[in-house]
Amino acid sequence: MADCWRFVYPLEERSLKPVNIGLCGLGTVGGGTLTVLKRNLLDINAHAGKSVVLTHIGARRDNPAFDLSGIKVSRDVFAVADDPEVDILVELIGGTSVAKELVLRAVRSGKHVVTANKALIAEFGNELFAEAAKHNVVIAYEAAVAGGIPIIRAMREGLAANKIEWLAGIINGTGNFILTEMRDKGRAFEDVLKEAQELGYAEADPTFDVEGIDAAHKLVILASIAFGMPLQFDKVFTEGISTISTEDVAYAGELGYQVKHLGITRKRPNQGIELRVHPTLIPNSRLIANVDGVMNAVLVKGDAVGPTLYYGPGAGAEPTASAVVSDIVDVSRLVGAESGSSVPHLGFALDKLVDYPILPIEEVETAYYIRISALDRPGVLSKITQILSDAGISIEALIQKEPKEGQDHVPVILLTNRAIEKQIIAAIKKIEALDSINGKVVRIRVESLK
Amino acid sequence: MADCWRFVYPLEERSLKPVNIGLCGLGTVGGGTLTVLKRNLLDINAHAGKSVVLTHIGARRDNPAFDLSGIKVSRDVFAVADDPEVDILVELIGGTSVAKELVLRAVRSGKHVVTANKALIAEFGNELFAEAAKHNVVIAYEAAVAGGIPIIRAMREGLAANKIEWLAGIINGTGNFILTEMRDKGRAFEDVLKEAQELGYAEADPTFDVEGIDAAHKLVILASIAFGMPLQFDKVFTEGISTISTEDVAYAGELGYQVKHLGITRKRPNQGIELRVHPTLIPNSRLIANVDGVMNAVLVKGDAVGPTLYYGPGAGAEPTASAVVSDIVDVSRLVGAESGSSVPHLGFALDKLVDYPILPIEEVETAYYIRISALDRPGVLSKITQILSDAGISIEALIQKEPKEGQDHVPVILLTNRAIEKQIIAAIKKIEALDSINGKVVRIRVESLK
Repeated sequence: MADCWRFVYPLEERSLKPVNIGLCGLGTVGGGTLTVLKRNLLDINAHAGKSVVLTHIGARRDNPAFDLSGIKVSRDVFAVADDPEVDILVELIGGTSVAKELVLRAVRSGKHVVTANKALIAEFGNELFAEAAKHNVVIAYEAAVAGGIPIIRAMREGLAANKIEWLAGIINGTGNFILTEMRDKGRAFEDVLKEAQELGYAEADPTFDVEGIDAAHKLVILASIAFGMPLQFDKVFTEGISTISTEDVAYAGELGYQVKHLGITRKRPNQGIELRVHPTLIPNSRLIANVDGVMNAVLVKGDAVGPTLYYGPGAGAEPTASAVVSDIVDVSRLVGAESGSSVPHLGFALDKLVDYPILPIEEVETAYYIRISALDRPGVLSKITQILSDAGISIEALIQKEPKEGQDHVPVILLTNRAIEKQIIAAIKKIEALDSINGKVVRIRVESLK
Repeated sequence: MADCWRFVYPLEERSLKPVNIGLCGLGTVGGGTLTVLKRNLLDINAHAGKSVVLTHIGARRDNPAFDLSGIKVSRDVFAVADDPEVDILVELIGGTSVAKELVLRAVRSGKHVVTANKALIAEFGNELFAEAAKHNVVIAYEAAVAGGIPIIRAMREGLAANKIEWLAGIINGTGNFILTEMRDKGRAFEDVLKEAQELGYAEADPTFDVEGIDAAHKLVILASIAFGMPLQFDKVFTEGISTISTEDVAYAGELGYQVKHLGITRKRPNQGIELRVHPTLIPNSRLIANVDGVMNAVLVKGDAVGPTLYYGPGAGAEPTASAVVSDIVDVSRLVGAESGSSVPHLGFALDKLVDYPILPIEEVETAYYIRISALDRPGVLSKITQILSDAGISIEALIQKEPKEGQDHVPVILLTNRAIEKQIIAAIKKIEALDSINGKVVRIRVESLK
């Protein structure tokens, strides 16, 4: 049978030049990468069209789970960046300060880089990608967003024909696990969080996950690829799920909705980009509403293709390693090629990126779920609906419950139509000022994802 | 800002050398491709890093919907293949005889090819890919499977780290629309088929769609990429949905299952490959069970990543054009590159493909839904269960209904555990031979997709 890639690498050159991998970091993802590389090496080489060889590991300490015989091991990760034999440096140490220096050092010595580090890319990607371009190398980062789901490739290449209109993703498994448990078992947030920590899904400090910072890192990367703009992590609006009550999850269910913690970005023509992470009600009938537990999914709306969805495990040793090693395969094809044909880091040629304005959250357009604790007295509902009507906000659905035994307040739940956020907030302030209203109005954004 | 792809194409060369596209076929997909290319040209060029120019169209007749001024038009599609100015030939004429000659002619004259033709790739891909390798060009075919879903890229590159264990896809929208309507509205197959034809979802001759031939074409391509084996269209087992009754769809629902027309391929270590298209019961709790109407989805199980799913529109002018144009962008990057780094056609280097045996359907391992029309008389159920038990087949679930007014037969519905198909068939023959059984036993395969 003919040799499909002979035109890329002459046979003799191929057998002479294996691709040398230097791996930095032997934690969860580093260990998973070692495991997958070893187990599937023959297939990986068959995919790459050359021999991929792990030659150098940089790790502060040994990991007794792995036999590293035959592999050079350095305690100083920078020794891997400086190793002239290494073709591709795989950065799996995490964090941003050392990792950034490490990647820059590798790039400047002409090495390609593969990383799973979402914080690094979201916060320093512009600088890193520019430096990589200057040195004719690539930084591959499929593992940085949604773990094992090949969403970077899908958006950067698979949807390249499209103008992306918006995307919405469940891109933090911990948050989705908590919300799923709250819905299925009627358990409180704090209670489920504790279990997630015990199960190892959530860190001891859960802020990154439940307050949406982790999701914001991923969203910023997806948005830049979607619209062709520089990474702007400082501009993303972030709201966590720690304030979501079991009560609201249940009312959402009655209305035919799920509460999901979504990263959402949308292009508003001639206005700017919405870039936001927050709890969101979405209709049960959307496929993404059925994504439960620790799983991730990203729904992307392109102007030509319509909606497409990508689903899979967003974290974990081997799922993340799946993305890391797939990147190693891709980048291996570039090693030794005199001129490559690599995809630009953000899908668009760097000089074609546009610095679109990011809209402040007050200017975002969305629908709202509103829960009001109202006195059970005639005329209250009329006052509420009058305020909304005066603000030009119409009501799509309404539930009024009977008062509980011995209580004089009743919950009133409303779904509004789409409006600019500042208008909703102004209306809610007026509602809260009514005598017949008890405490703060609860509000959760609603997206139809159509 | 630095120029990300300067190392690929020098600036002066870029501006001098646009990529010339020759498009053959102006039907639904051809029209969609023209529309998308025109509407999103600036973004497409920003993705490709060069100017993509449609220079030559081959079509037997004009399509009055499109203004083709400034583009050379030939009545003979082979004139496009012979045009020395054309870099990439886009084959959208369909069928296999002329299309095959056209693609071969283009390849032999050093042109890259983009095609949406699943029959062509499934039936003649081995020959075409070998010829393309010989001439240092690529044949891109993302649009051939599941329309706008970038499943070829996802599997060939995004999951390259994995050994694929199995995949299951809803890869024919017409069939899925029919089954969804049968479930939601209790309508009969024939009735919904007629509506699908009126809506334009199904062809006048619906055989390709409802008997699974279209799905078989796509499955064969996916299986070859999954396992790294030559395309073997003649080996796929195909069973359509025309025999599925509304009654069975409803009983499946009672048991917590959906009936979907799936293309399934699975590697049975040391035995061979299962390659089959048939109606299948799948649990409601799987995300793919919620894929309704004309939408497509492919669920892939990799050993490292676990399950991932890809969802979107599997047909239609612009969704298919989305895949065609994304391929044009990818292939454009190769044009003029002295040495490329292209991905092998089936993901694996051609000389690494393995000709695994395809298991005959009798050797497939699957669970079964069985519906028996049994005399409402003591001892019948015991005889049925004895036959299954003797064959080593255990029963996972059972429903026995009351007889309808005036009938002496009752439906008995069973779900079995997994077994080799020929064992199930032998057991069913014995059940059908019982005096107390009326007519043929209905059987539908069941997959848990875990």
